Amino acid sequence: MNGRLSSQLEFIREVDRLKTIFRQTYLMDASRHENDAEHSWHITLMAWLLEEHAAQGHVDILRVMKMLLIHDLVEIDAGDTFAYDIKGQEGKFEREREGATRIFGLLPAEQSGELMELWLEFEQGETPEARYAAAMDRIQPLLHNYFTQGKAWREHGVTLGRVQGRIRILEADLPEVHALVTELLEDAVEKGYLLP
Amino acid sequence: MNGRLSSQLEFIREVDRLKTIFRQTYLMDASRHENDAEHSWHITLMAWLLEEHAAQGHVDILRVMKMLLIHDLVEIDAGDTFAYDIKGQEGKFEREREGATRIFGLLPAEQSGELMELWLEFEQGETPEARYAAAMDRIQPLLHNYFTQGKAWREHGVTLGRVQGRIRILEADLPEVHALVTELLEDAVEKGYLLP
Repeated sequence: MNGRLSSQLEFIREVDRLKTIFRQTYLMDASRHENDAEHSWHITLMAWLLEEHAAQGHVDILRVMKMLLIHDLVEIDAGDTFAYDIKGQEGKFEREREGATRIFGLLPAEQSGELMELWLEFEQGETPEARYAAAMDRIQPLLHNYFTQGKAWREHGVTLGRVQGRIRILEADLPEVHALVTELLEDAVEKGYLLP
Repeated sequence: MNGRLSSQLEFIREVDRLKTIFRQTYLMDASRHENDAEHSWHITLMAWLLEEHAAQGHVDILRVMKMLLIHDLVEIDAGDTFAYDIKGQEGKFEREREGATRIFGLLPAEQSGELMELWLEFEQGETPEARYAAAMDRIQPLLHNYFTQGKAWREHGVTLGRVQGRIRILEADLPEVHALVTELLEDAVEKGYLLP
């Protein structure tokens, strides 16, 4: 049997577990928490459709999409850490890097290296692609919170200042989206979805 | 407010419903049925990782990935039709085309047109990209069935011949993958996962 194909299928089987890693965010209909696989699908699609709003001009959209498809795979081992859980952030990178090594390591060496490089680029957040990808990862849960009357925000006592801090990266890179999202946040505070 | 951005966000909100459309296929751990959003994520990732096995040589992988991200959105309106449900296939294309018109139509006109074109290309299955995308869409549930001891196959009394018919498209386009999957199917019959 083809060794490369066999490794690839083993990886494809293993990453199915992303569907069982649940986030704090709720679906738009508030019926249940969202899982990482659904979230990854949603933001990969968003990255494609919102590309025109990137102030950097050209981003390599294929690279962004690849980054987003795999950015949460490390959570199969490390679990999901809520964005506003300060204690949970301790040691997060080390836990996730171990996960990356094991999970990406199921693939043939050069593919494993490619995924590790993309994941590290995303984590470091310095290239236009990584920053654009991070923007998608922050806009999406914000929309889910807004359209569920702040369900997860209210459960965790999240404040306006905390969310504003999370989306500051949008200001330079996606100014129009930042402006719109800022309006949503003001409305959310007014409606009691989010603490002032 | 930016009208284009506003339409795009409306679309992003609407397509969240893909996470509530369940398929006959079970997760690899057999704990529950898989939904369309998770499935779309999984096969988009597979398309990237298995590209080297495409016998056509070069496929435009960005186009394939876009196709796979949106190929099931029509099911938000038309529902999931089980691949082996002959009666369900009647009028399926018309139902799905109406869904495509409504859902893609939420986007600005030229994006709506782009999604419609990609979806029709996928449905027609003639270009190398559409055939490669279709191959991913067929391999993935087969793997899920195999690794769950044929759970959905057994529930629906699916036979070897029916599955062989579904994966015939792999023979010319992905011969190595076809060979491996054929071995899995023989093993599945031997183990009683699939009717002979």
